[in-house]
Amino acid sequence: MTKKPKTSALQEKDGVSQSEITNTISIENIQLKRKAQPSSTELVAQIIKGNITALSRAITLVESSNINHSKKANDVIKQCLPYANSSVRIGITGVPGVGKSTFIEAFGTHLTNLGKKVAVLAVDPSSSLSKGSILGDKTRMEDLVKNKNAFIRPSPSGDSLGGVARKTRETIILCEAAGFDTIVIETVGVGQSETAVHSMVDFFLLLKLAGAGDELQGIKRGIIEMADAIAINKADGDNLKSAKLAKVEFNRALHLYPQKASNWQPKVTLCSALKNKGISEIWQLIENYIEHTKNNSFFNINRTEQNKFWLLQTIEERLKSDFFNQSQIKKELKSQLQLIEAGKITPFAAAEYLLNLKN
Amino acid sequence: MTKKPKTSALQEKDGVSQSEITNTISIENIQLKRKAQPSSTELVAQIIKGNITALSRAITLVESSNINHSKKANDVIKQCLPYANSSVRIGITGVPGVGKSTFIEAFGTHLTNLGKKVAVLAVDPSSSLSKGSILGDKTRMEDLVKNKNAFIRPSPSGDSLGGVARKTRETIILCEAAGFDTIVIETVGVGQSETAVHSMVDFFLLLKLAGAGDELQGIKRGIIEMADAIAINKADGDNLKSAKLAKVEFNRALHLYPQKASNWQPKVTLCSALKNKGISEIWQLIENYIEHTKNNSFFNINRTEQNKFWLLQTIEERLKSDFFNQSQIKKELKSQLQLIEAGKITPFAAAEYLLNLKN
Repeated sequence: MTKKPKTSALQEKDGVSQSEITNTISIENIQLKRKAQPSSTELVAQIIKGNITALSRAITLVESSNINHSKKANDVIKQCLPYANSSVRIGITGVPGVGKSTFIEAFGTHLTNLGKKVAVLAVDPSSSLSKGSILGDKTRMEDLVKNKNAFIRPSPSGDSLGGVARKTRETIILCEAAGFDTIVIETVGVGQSETAVHSMVDFFLLLKLAGAGDELQGIKRGIIEMADAIAINKADGDNLKSAKLAKVEFNRALHLYPQKASNWQPKVTLCSALKNKGISEIWQLIENYIEHTKNNSFFNINRTEQNKFWLLQTIEERLKSDFFNQSQIKKELKSQLQLIEAGKITPFAAAEYLLNLKN
Repeated sequence: MTKKPKTSALQEKDGVSQSEITNTISIENIQLKRKAQPSSTELVAQIIKGNITALSRAITLVESSNINHSKKANDVIKQCLPYANSSVRIGITGVPGVGKSTFIEAFGTHLTNLGKKVAVLAVDPSSSLSKGSILGDKTRMEDLVKNKNAFIRPSPSGDSLGGVARKTRETIILCEAAGFDTIVIETVGVGQSETAVHSMVDFFLLLKLAGAGDELQGIKRGIIEMADAIAINKADGDNLKSAKLAKVEFNRALHLYPQKASNWQPKVTLCSALKNKGISEIWQLIENYIEHTKNNSFFNINRTEQNKFWLLQTIEERLKSDFFNQSQIKKELKSQLQLIEAGKITPFAAAEYLLNLKN
């Protein structure tokens, strides 16, 4: 707020400047607090010791849109890289209601009982709108949230799937450097988020319900094709019979697909997360998969391919946003679209015109 | 070839220079011929009179990679635009062997018999490699190729689907200006070419065979979802029974999809292109569709949306090619990929580095 010159009768209203002094103190406090924050080297030293506070702070830097935070985050990640990459990364998807949280609670607890350190992350591009639809409600993971060998972090917010995916991928590296040997990444069964998660994990698990009737949807959107295993959840009590039937059907469907690059034949399995049944079998299956893909080198080849994919993906997204966010382009795009609607220009001529305006 | 200095005994071998003179004359001839080519205004005047030679010349300009040709092509297209857009554009796809050429022969002949003028184009990004795999062999359309109310043009070549699609879209405008009221665009049932063709036509027809067992493939790749009608071809003789069964199955499958934006329920029909059966029914169906979508305004809305799509698509492709074709980026991309493979940099940091090199 601009201060009024002290030439009018209103001079006595100095309360405004007092308020400003208060603000200055607040700002200094904030600045002091920032200075109190550890340097990136100090942060990394703590992370590789497994300090959860340091890990959380680093993730907050990754998720921040502040340019200084981003620089520090990049520095931290770079220093963490030599300590990363040694985990097993597991993607879990399924439509709302399939029991993802209950499954992750049971699955994560099983893994920590085996002595594993489990980080649970999420990719949910809708979370910035819905204020965290998945992993937001940690009460659904009562035991895991209290478990000192588990670390649960809800989906970062971000206006694009690309942004959310980048933050989660960088968080994976931080978690691995902090000693987490099993990374579970949950995603909702809607939109393109499965493809994003599939391209950042080693193993992709699809949770299904028997008789849900969404098979066509799964085939159409390529999710079944991405799955390394399909677990039919809630396979207990009255559901057991139909779950067994669904298993046969999914097995048949999976055999219609061409062989995967991993040379792994996807498996169908039954489980009941609520009754803690079939969970250890799923982990056994994942271990078999890891052994199989490490033996035939697919494991490392796939991780390198994923990194290359993310490099190109990031560049493409930035090229587009850099172009379309120019104020001149925004304005001219509007008028070119009007010319197109009026049938006065072809889309190709309009594109040419806009591209020639490029800085 | 560099000429040898005239200091050796080989001087008398002046045949080389004669050959060069001949070449110079050839070049002049070519240049003369080029001068003889009509101006863009003259070309447009001929096109709108329905002159096929002028139309072919204009299409050759569109397909040329010469920058002067492109400029002239853009000028011709701009002048043709007021005379375009009044046709019905029909996309036809189906896997090799489904009988596309035979179908188009029968379908096109039926339309010309009704007094229509039919242009048959193709989108086949593989044609530059395979030297024209579809429509290249016009002998499969014996009658249509001789029909003066039909114009057949094979797929333009081009190293990218985007390039091929752009050329075909511009050719549609030229054909429409030349008085063709029905544009048929054929594409092969592989890759992303169906999506490209679907986004340039009013009506999308999928040709199938009974019992081909590629239903899953069609669902998975979203082709069945794009279809406004499925025609089961070769429904004759011993095939008729299984074709009728396939019709029931496809009808059931189509009802599983959500309602289309056009509010049109896709139809399944039987035909035998070879025996000329079911062809008039398919045209009737297309006429019903056109009437339906013109009544509910979808027809025009869809064309505008398609134009907007191509505007954005063209810009995105060019932004990418402009970036990745810079020699410095090519070089540095290679070394960044090596750093990624060695696990020394994240894909996001590498992307940042490359983007900062941008001109």
